[in-house]
Amino acid sequence: MMSKYYSDILKDLSPYTPGEQLNDKKYIKLNTNENPYPPSDKVITTIKEYSGGDLRLYPDPESLELRKVLASHHGVDIDNVFVSNGSDETLAFAFNAFYTGKKIAYPKVTYSFYPVYAKLYNCQVDELDMLDDYEIDKKALMEKKVGLVIANPNAPTGELLDKDYLLALLENNSNSLILIDEAYMDFSQEESMAKYIKEYKNLLVVRTFSKSYSLAGMRIGYAVGDKELIFGLNLVKNSFNSYPLDRLAQVAGIQAIKDQAYYDALNKEIISTREYTKKALEELGCKVLPSASNFLFVKFKDLASFKVYEDFKKEGILIRQFSYISDYVRITIGKKEDMEALIEVAKEILR
Amino acid sequence: MMSKYYSDILKDLSPYTPGEQLNDKKYIKLNTNENPYPPSDKVITTIKEYSGGDLRLYPDPESLELRKVLASHHGVDIDNVFVSNGSDETLAFAFNAFYTGKKIAYPKVTYSFYPVYAKLYNCQVDELDMLDDYEIDKKALMEKKVGLVIANPNAPTGELLDKDYLLALLENNSNSLILIDEAYMDFSQEESMAKYIKEYKNLLVVRTFSKSYSLAGMRIGYAVGDKELIFGLNLVKNSFNSYPLDRLAQVAGIQAIKDQAYYDALNKEIISTREYTKKALEELGCKVLPSASNFLFVKFKDLASFKVYEDFKKEGILIRQFSYISDYVRITIGKKEDMEALIEVAKEILR
Repeated sequence: MMSKYYSDILKDLSPYTPGEQLNDKKYIKLNTNENPYPPSDKVITTIKEYSGGDLRLYPDPESLELRKVLASHHGVDIDNVFVSNGSDETLAFAFNAFYTGKKIAYPKVTYSFYPVYAKLYNCQVDELDMLDDYEIDKKALMEKKVGLVIANPNAPTGELLDKDYLLALLENNSNSLILIDEAYMDFSQEESMAKYIKEYKNLLVVRTFSKSYSLAGMRIGYAVGDKELIFGLNLVKNSFNSYPLDRLAQVAGIQAIKDQAYYDALNKEIISTREYTKKALEELGCKVLPSASNFLFVKFKDLASFKVYEDFKKEGILIRQFSYISDYVRITIGKKEDMEALIEVAKEILR
Repeated sequence: MMSKYYSDILKDLSPYTPGEQLNDKKYIKLNTNENPYPPSDKVITTIKEYSGGDLRLYPDPESLELRKVLASHHGVDIDNVFVSNGSDETLAFAFNAFYTGKKIAYPKVTYSFYPVYAKLYNCQVDELDMLDDYEIDKKALMEKKVGLVIANPNAPTGELLDKDYLLALLENNSNSLILIDEAYMDFSQEESMAKYIKEYKNLLVVRTFSKSYSLAGMRIGYAVGDKELIFGLNLVKNSFNSYPLDRLAQVAGIQAIKDQAYYDALNKEIISTREYTKKALEELGCKVLPSASNFLFVKFKDLASFKVYEDFKKEGILIRQFSYISDYVRITIGKKEDMEALIEVAKEILR
């Protein structure tokens, strides 16, 4: 529908559709890459502690304490850190601040919010064709001299680009901003690229508390980059909403970083369950791409992805199917017992 | 500073500066229009109740329950309600969806975030000169045939435009969207204009939980309007961030509306304290504009507003001074004892 009150920008938008958020608890929910384990007890206790009369007051618009803790976590300065209402908001601000009206490039199969931002901010996008099995064409990417957006590990495939390749890319394309979205990085065995922001002024690393910190419900994301980039993000943020992070999100984020050991153990467990699941699905004849994330990208022989999705749903398991991908589905790594249930259903489906 | 990585949109931005958020509790904080009373006990209890393992899960991206409760509160349908991370986010989305690149008008002295949005979304703004004592020029406003943005009551003056005038404006300018920002409406004795959205397809009413629901710390705002307008807002929101309201904000908002009686009593108390303060300041020789909000706009005889601000700060009271207003200051209504303290300091300052 178009209304006479709309501005022209609404004409071409095609919004992002998140995975189903069914409140219905009867499903095993392996469709939106949530962490199967709860946040640490201390995070919960801290939120409760701050749930009081002070909620009448605005939060710190600068989120200073949270940024200080994040800066220390990544070994950078506080003015190298930007925080936002989930990493989607950071991504939106980054597209707006750095890519509006510009040429940019990213792999054709990647986080499907990127094309949405690109439309909203009028970017001209060069979508790079994938190689076989949805692999990123590293050679083609290296040749692009425009702004780049790279999910690393990539979503929904789980592919990890290694540090040396990314450093070469940053070196080779130093006049363009290279945004590396590390939403799933903590599920790899590699370190964040955030520590390279001092050497590479064209590097912006975007991260989230939604996956590895088990706080999707609190909406906390952040970026690490050169202070000029952070200044640019703040120009947009402060022209949009002074207080995107509420009081409880700020204290939850601070406590989560302090409880790093708890989350390291969770992530280790998820990695182990991922490898267990990969092996089991492969034994059933599925093709499973190598994954450095908390999900697997899986081809159930010659079954259409939509049918696989439907079959799992019928059996009480939600997985993610993308309309533009007909062969593979994405399966979030849950608890060991969730994956055992998934494997049992997979056996039925493949029979 | 400008960086080679910036897009052109950063060139002209001049971000909004919120009032000081000093964590220092030694100040009586009458500068950002926060409610001096805590949220209801049930709101606090509800937040604590939902602070648990489910924070690992994304919130409902559609905030269905909260929108249902708001729809019922205003006697409209659920598809007439849009919710966001504070009303600033609703305002940003509305400017983006309806006013991008268009001609719009608003009074010169009003909420100072409007010019910021107008720059971000490239609007051509006709700023209407104020009459004496910062009164809105109702006749000039009635003659404008472009999109209008009206804070009602107006900020920082507190002026209320009456229902009949606004209905005439909606009738008279039916081809333009008229955004009425009711951030402070609950402190007037008038009803929200939200109930007129069925008759006036060009009416968008924006409201917040930050002031009258005492939840500035939780970031909840919303809009009520024709479903085509809400659809347009969702197009932008879903091209920007799927989940701007976290799980705790959603349940806090729901419970606050259910506890309406508690908030009605608070608001009544604030109105009474406002009238007490107005009278006391007038007795000291101040000029105090009529206010239908939780703040007063006050002229301390011939003292410069910046000096008044500084003098109060020295005595431990934070009030709001605007760089572009040299005579009046804005004073938030706190508890009775806060205002008694303010009046004592006012006596000193005026001596």
